[in-house]
Amino acid sequence: MPARLSTFFVRTLREDPADAEVTSHRLLVRAGYIRRQAPGIFAWLPLGLRVKAKVEAIIREEMTAAGAQEVHFPALLPREPYDLTGRWEEYGDGIFRLKDRKDGDYLLAPTHEEVFTLLVKDLYSSYKDLPLTIYQIQDKYRDEARPRAGILRGREFTMKDAYSFDWSDEGLEESYQAQRAAYERIFARLGLDYVIVDADAGAMGGSKSEEFLHPTPIGEDTFVRSAGGYAANVEAFTTLAPDPVPIDGLPEPVVFDSPNTPTIATLVELANAEVPRDDRPWTAADTLKNVVLALRHLDGTRELVVVGLPGDRDVDLKRLEVAFQPAEVEAATEADFDATPALVKGYIGPWSPTGPILGFDSASRIRFLLDPRIADGTQWMTGANIHEKHVYGLVAGRDFTGDGFVEAAEVREGDPAPDGSGPIETARGTEIGHVFQLGRKYADALGLQVLDPNGKLVTVTMGSYGIGVTRNIALIAEQSSDEKGLLWPEAVSPFDLHLVATGKDQTVYEIADRLMEELGAAGIDVLYDDRPKVSPGVKFGDAELIGIPTILIVGRGAADGVGELWDRRTGERREIALDSVGAELGRR
Amino acid sequence: MPARLSTFFVRTLREDPADAEVTSHRLLVRAGYIRRQAPGIFAWLPLGLRVKAKVEAIIREEMTAAGAQEVHFPALLPREPYDLTGRWEEYGDGIFRLKDRKDGDYLLAPTHEEVFTLLVKDLYSSYKDLPLTIYQIQDKYRDEARPRAGILRGREFTMKDAYSFDWSDEGLEESYQAQRAAYERIFARLGLDYVIVDADAGAMGGSKSEEFLHPTPIGEDTFVRSAGGYAANVEAFTTLAPDPVPIDGLPEPVVFDSPNTPTIATLVELANAEVPRDDRPWTAADTLKNVVLALRHLDGTRELVVVGLPGDRDVDLKRLEVAFQPAEVEAATEADFDATPALVKGYIGPWSPTGPILGFDSASRIRFLLDPRIADGTQWMTGANIHEKHVYGLVAGRDFTGDGFVEAAEVREGDPAPDGSGPIETARGTEIGHVFQLGRKYADALGLQVLDPNGKLVTVTMGSYGIGVTRNIALIAEQSSDEKGLLWPEAVSPFDLHLVATGKDQTVYEIADRLMEELGAAGIDVLYDDRPKVSPGVKFGDAELIGIPTILIVGRGAADGVGELWDRRTGERREIALDSVGAELGRR
Repeated sequence: MPARLSTFFVRTLREDPADAEVTSHRLLVRAGYIRRQAPGIFAWLPLGLRVKAKVEAIIREEMTAAGAQEVHFPALLPREPYDLTGRWEEYGDGIFRLKDRKDGDYLLAPTHEEVFTLLVKDLYSSYKDLPLTIYQIQDKYRDEARPRAGILRGREFTMKDAYSFDWSDEGLEESYQAQRAAYERIFARLGLDYVIVDADAGAMGGSKSEEFLHPTPIGEDTFVRSAGGYAANVEAFTTLAPDPVPIDGLPEPVVFDSPNTPTIATLVELANAEVPRDDRPWTAADTLKNVVLALRHLDGTRELVVVGLPGDRDVDLKRLEVAFQPAEVEAATEADFDATPALVKGYIGPWSPTGPILGFDSASRIRFLLDPRIADGTQWMTGANIHEKHVYGLVAGRDFTGDGFVEAAEVREGDPAPDGSGPIETARGTEIGHVFQLGRKYADALGLQVLDPNGKLVTVTMGSYGIGVTRNIALIAEQSSDEKGLLWPEAVSPFDLHLVATGKDQTVYEIADRLMEELGAAGIDVLYDDRPKVSPGVKFGDAELIGIPTILIVGRGAADGVGELWDRRTGERREIALDSVGAELGRR
Repeated sequence: MPARLSTFFVRTLREDPADAEVTSHRLLVRAGYIRRQAPGIFAWLPLGLRVKAKVEAIIREEMTAAGAQEVHFPALLPREPYDLTGRWEEYGDGIFRLKDRKDGDYLLAPTHEEVFTLLVKDLYSSYKDLPLTIYQIQDKYRDEARPRAGILRGREFTMKDAYSFDWSDEGLEESYQAQRAAYERIFARLGLDYVIVDADAGAMGGSKSEEFLHPTPIGEDTFVRSAGGYAANVEAFTTLAPDPVPIDGLPEPVVFDSPNTPTIATLVELANAEVPRDDRPWTAADTLKNVVLALRHLDGTRELVVVGLPGDRDVDLKRLEVAFQPAEVEAATEADFDATPALVKGYIGPWSPTGPILGFDSASRIRFLLDPRIADGTQWMTGANIHEKHVYGLVAGRDFTGDGFVEAAEVREGDPAPDGSGPIETARGTEIGHVFQLGRKYADALGLQVLDPNGKLVTVTMGSYGIGVTRNIALIAEQSSDEKGLLWPEAVSPFDLHLVATGKDQTVYEIADRLMEELGAAGIDVLYDDRPKVSPGVKFGDAELIGIPTILIVGRGAADGVGELWDRRTGERREIALDSVGAELGRR
């Protein structure tokens, strides 16, 4: 539908909104696409709604092409299904909860795994019913602590969420790949740059999970990539473990006095002074740092754990959290140390002259997890579990062993990619899509089983696939804008053409009127700036701010059948015969 | 998009849902259109979503044709705007309220007058910006006490709500008529019967308001209509007052003993025995019943009021409530009578031998409102305000007068329509649309003013126009169904054609496959029952239940190019050449 700016419900604003932190928020408000109602909650004006409808149409087309069927769930849902999976509690402050007049507990759903699972359980019972992928485009709610950045991270936002149901792992893999391929097509059509990264599958139990990240300096996620094609979320990055070193013939450990060494740096300095190496100075990378943590398990129990990592690396809290999901990680307290005399604070290590100190089988019986760099045969300087004493020449696999490995150390540029594709670099990005093999977690919790070909009940395996519709609109705006305003890719532009009539000559407006009708009949959607008393400068400024990629100026030359075609992207303007505009635009 | 039943996400059910009270609920669940999530909260399956999309498309087209522009507001809104108009409190238990993590008050909006008003205030400032009509199709929430009847009266439901903004009363009238006309087109296209009735404009101050009611025995509203074309909501019905009668020469009132007359019937019986009329017996219609009520005003004050009406009519509580909006009506208590010795319980009347008893200027100073039938010169038998005494021959306008009139008496079939178009009958209906001149209530409360052509600030006048999308779908289902299942009007049918392939002959399925493709290419949306191992009987039963109006059976004759076209509405089946199906359906 064409529209005339004289009556179109839009007002461009000269001032940036006071709370706008990012370009897309600033421009979408100024250009009249959205309007804030509360923190993280926005109304969509006609321009914005047109962009949203185009994005949604693209997603629907690709979902249909991938064999997914559309359904629609309520936003307001009862507590019960979310209790069955534990998510009612797990979400903490992150969701909106409410009660109805009968004191029943409800939530505004942040995501719909539970009810999709129950719906399929309700209607399906046989392997013959599967595979099935169903999706919705629907408004979701999260009570973000700091809603910011406009629609980039809102509290009410639109998502496409799809869920696949299969009775075999091979089936899940196929459904997953179909959605993954659809996502690649969707982001290509939206004109949105993306990187697919391995993602943390977290508490879900190590199934496959990939994120589509849009690289942007304002991104909330850090990811790593190598020139050779490796890409992963920092939380999903795995350390390339060095090969084991032969242990035979390595010297015995040496205990030495080490008073006043509260930090790795002071320890290294003392060691270089008191027990220097022949070949080179000691460095922080020679030391083994043992970090004492407390895990709070879902069943409420508390467990002390020690993580051992090279002394030149810090613990990455997010990686640590992911590594121990679903348990929560806390710092060990003074009370913990008091209750564990085996640990000599400041001088903790896996070994002491009296025997092993850390690990299930040791004196302390405390779980001891190692960074993968602590390979068998590597030698370390660390605490000797005696006050004011450290030890060097401690050999992994001989003098101490861990109960397993853990990815808890920070990731650094230059670290080798785990697939051998070279050193990594880090970058920032924002998640625009997520494909996720949930496996049987939800089907188990909610009892979704079907009969397999042998007549045996099997638990269904699921995938979950999300795209943030409103967030993607913000990122498209962010990626394509310039200092003058928005600049939409044609596929999602609110109109195909911004037609600007200039001057005071009534015939110009009559010609433009007719042109709008003709182009409309040819299927070209025109936003027509027909405002009679507005200066060309203001009209051009509005056109640049609104950001339709093609602008046609009809002015003095109109009577001679000539206008000016203005490419908003390149800034190039060129004369064009008005009667060829339809053909020109139709060719695109 | 065509669909194959072998993979389409639908399962028809043999059993009615246990909680289904109405046909539409029963059939929409059984045929796989919707699925309950919580009381009054439903998920939409692919079939249902297709119908919903078609209904919404029709509404959008007619809104656009009427010059309305689409926007979209959040469902989750902050309390403040609703405080400014007093609706946060007024809604009572009827809405969902919640708090965010910062303890801010929010609601799930039941309707959006406030935020539409604020949006226009935000962007517009001049009469030149008006008129403006903006609308949304959006999910709304009401915490109904007894959600029932499926999507007919849900707690989450989809509405189209439009709001018009004008700076003059004439402008409002035009905007109102444009929406009203659009509604007539919409309901005609939806194939939904309707009656436009005058509606109670209620607390809004008597502006114009009309409801589109769908006549149905399961309707929650009672309305009245005359053969001459009058139609009104019972709450909006106005009584045709009789002409005044000359008072000169009427006899004086006569007081008589009336012990043991607790009811109108006992009073009439006693009067006919003790003070009989010459011309005819006394009837209840000769008596004046005086009902004592207490009003609770918005400012918290409480006021006694007496309503006088003919003794053969009861008070209609809904009409009474509407008449006294926004005050709340309560019954008078014993304490009220104790505190008002002027009222002699059981013998209350507007007059006593010592002078007037009811009305602002009377001994009691109690407001006295009359039914319009109590015209000047009419004569009445009523209490004499003396224990065990009544009076007859009391003349309105001579012996007593009211402080005004009130529409509180029940409406009866046969009552004359106020426009003189004859006697009325009553019927039941359900509201499917509402057009409403809000006037300046919201603009006043929220400060929406614009400059008029003289540069003076004027308050904007508004209209509000609602259609219940999901409710309308229920009513279409209700209206068109039969004992075999649903039966959609073509305009909203989920598919254009239900193609049923029968038998076990593989070539039949190949021919049907090809036909589906050909019809799809011709723009005909086909639901194809390709299930190879399902009997024709089950397939036909499903087709009848699902209710696509046109069914094509491809079976034994397929090899000869012949199928059977089955009109679901009439039940008629006839042979058709398969290669002419496209043309046949295309003609419709």
